[in-house]
Amino acid sequence: MQINLKETAEFLKSRDKFYILTHQSPDGDTMGAGFGLCYALRSMGKSANVLCSDEFPKRYGFMYKDYGPQKFSPETIVAVDVADAKLLGSKLAQYGDYVELCIDHHVSNTGYAKRLLVYPDASAACEVLYRVLAEMGADIDKRTAECLYTGIATDTGCFKYGNTTKLAHTISAKLMEHGVDIESINRDMFDRKSKERLIAEKHILSDMEYYLDDKCTITAVTLADMESKGFSSEELEGTAGITVQPEGVQVGVLIKEKEKGKFKVSMRSASEVDVSAICAKFGGGGHVKAAGCTLEGELEDIKLKLLSGIAPSLGIDLWLA
Amino acid sequence: MQINLKETAEFLKSRDKFYILTHQSPDGDTMGAGFGLCYALRSMGKSANVLCSDEFPKRYGFMYKDYGPQKFSPETIVAVDVADAKLLGSKLAQYGDYVELCIDHHVSNTGYAKRLLVYPDASAACEVLYRVLAEMGADIDKRTAECLYTGIATDTGCFKYGNTTKLAHTISAKLMEHGVDIESINRDMFDRKSKERLIAEKHILSDMEYYLDDKCTITAVTLADMESKGFSSEELEGTAGITVQPEGVQVGVLIKEKEKGKFKVSMRSASEVDVSAICAKFGGGGHVKAAGCTLEGELEDIKLKLLSGIAPSLGIDLWLA
Repeated sequence: MQINLKETAEFLKSRDKFYILTHQSPDGDTMGAGFGLCYALRSMGKSANVLCSDEFPKRYGFMYKDYGPQKFSPETIVAVDVADAKLLGSKLAQYGDYVELCIDHHVSNTGYAKRLLVYPDASAACEVLYRVLAEMGADIDKRTAECLYTGIATDTGCFKYGNTTKLAHTISAKLMEHGVDIESINRDMFDRKSKERLIAEKHILSDMEYYLDDKCTITAVTLADMESKGFSSEELEGTAGITVQPEGVQVGVLIKEKEKGKFKVSMRSASEVDVSAICAKFGGGGHVKAAGCTLEGELEDIKLKLLSGIAPSLGIDLWLA
Repeated sequence: MQINLKETAEFLKSRDKFYILTHQSPDGDTMGAGFGLCYALRSMGKSANVLCSDEFPKRYGFMYKDYGPQKFSPETIVAVDVADAKLLGSKLAQYGDYVELCIDHHVSNTGYAKRLLVYPDASAACEVLYRVLAEMGADIDKRTAECLYTGIATDTGCFKYGNTTKLAHTISAKLMEHGVDIESINRDMFDRKSKERLIAEKHILSDMEYYLDDKCTITAVTLADMESKGFSSEELEGTAGITVQPEGVQVGVLIKEKEKGKFKVSMRSASEVDVSAICAKFGGGGHVKAAGCTLEGELEDIKLKLLSGIAPSLGIDLWLA
């Protein structure tokens, strides 16, 4: 059942003993919304804990420093930024059928929760949550503000992407009034990288190949590359965007070898080209500007296959090129 | 003479035939303020042109597409984002003594203009200008809004740096109401890079050396490096930040050989270390988190000299290390 801001605020005010569920492979938005809601509820004298099937990454440590899980028997199960009960992961799967409220911004939300507050146009679950807390008249301290800010900043690429809303900006301005240390947070979120990640980025820059009148790049990372250079496939997460950095490039492809002869393809568009349509030709899918597919075979054959799929979108006849 | 917003608005309204001066080596903020003010004045039926000693970079082309310089004899000289008459550059130096109004955000503004509107706490000259235009009740169309947004976004590293103000966010939200295409602008400003720039970044990642318990990195770029790898020193602008990307690094140093045996040193801090104090030891200066100096001699001697200057700030005794 879809409910509105006021109903959500009233529901939260009327309940106690909250388990707040975040999605597996937790990111800044689900954690920011989880801990932000937790601290706001605690400041109202309620009991609340934040749960996740996976460990919380250390880079978000400032969110859960001094958090301290509380001991109580849960009465109210809330999920934040969780579009589908499946995304709760193995440990939290047991709660999937008992979620009383879901606060989210995914248009794809499956409606598994009894009550649903979903604003699909919001940049982040934290943007939605801020409006809930404002409606509740909740106390927002510095730590809560930093959680909410981080969710909005990370989901918008620091206000860079097209999903950035006017509200993302105005809410961030309001959160800054609570003393958010944006310099330190943004440095940790966007500028700090592990040595292995920097090695992976260097590899991508080094092995990038230009095709189709330089409008397309392909970068392949094989198991042998990772082995010899010393980085894992984890370090490649979020690096596909590098493939469309060169000026003039419209489509960028990152090919990662997952197991011998099996390749995960990430495709990015920096133009009007719809890469989800291209990936669909190969049994994949995704969004207009970011999509993917999985292909098996010889790397060079896969490149040619992909180029033949991409070329028409760039108005290029591969056989005449 | 310092004047306030209202006086600035009245001054601009009462005058006509504007030459708007931008600083040499123009960036997004001086150009955004220049063209933003120009379009706003023209929409009020006034004549206005934007001038610069250097050519306007093509990446800001969307600002001056269909700009069309007007023909008139100037009556009012205004400077935007120009902290010092010297920064007008050679071609505009002739106007240095006749600037009737300067709109700026640099605390270091020398006060060369007859009237001065400087908000040193503002993130960008465009932030100050927006307030002027609002005070004037000026018409802000999409193009004007995109100029102002770009100035704020580029001077704050897309709202990432510590100089980002609450107003930077609230003004950006207001500018978005005018249809600013933030996705396309931010891609061009922050994600698009020339091939040469990508080669330069790859070089920095490849040649980065770790010192002082891995709390300091030094990367040197010699004339020979640029020659052999195929990039110019121009491509190194704004790359010093890469030197403090690795986790745990507190001070990063980029050394660029300007001419045989003469090195420009850029130093960055990702901690409490004050790099301007370190650079001052070597006759340089700058800001707490970003400073520089120039050193002559053998590259390896210069590295050792810099390390001996940096080590105490990291609590390291170089001779025991």
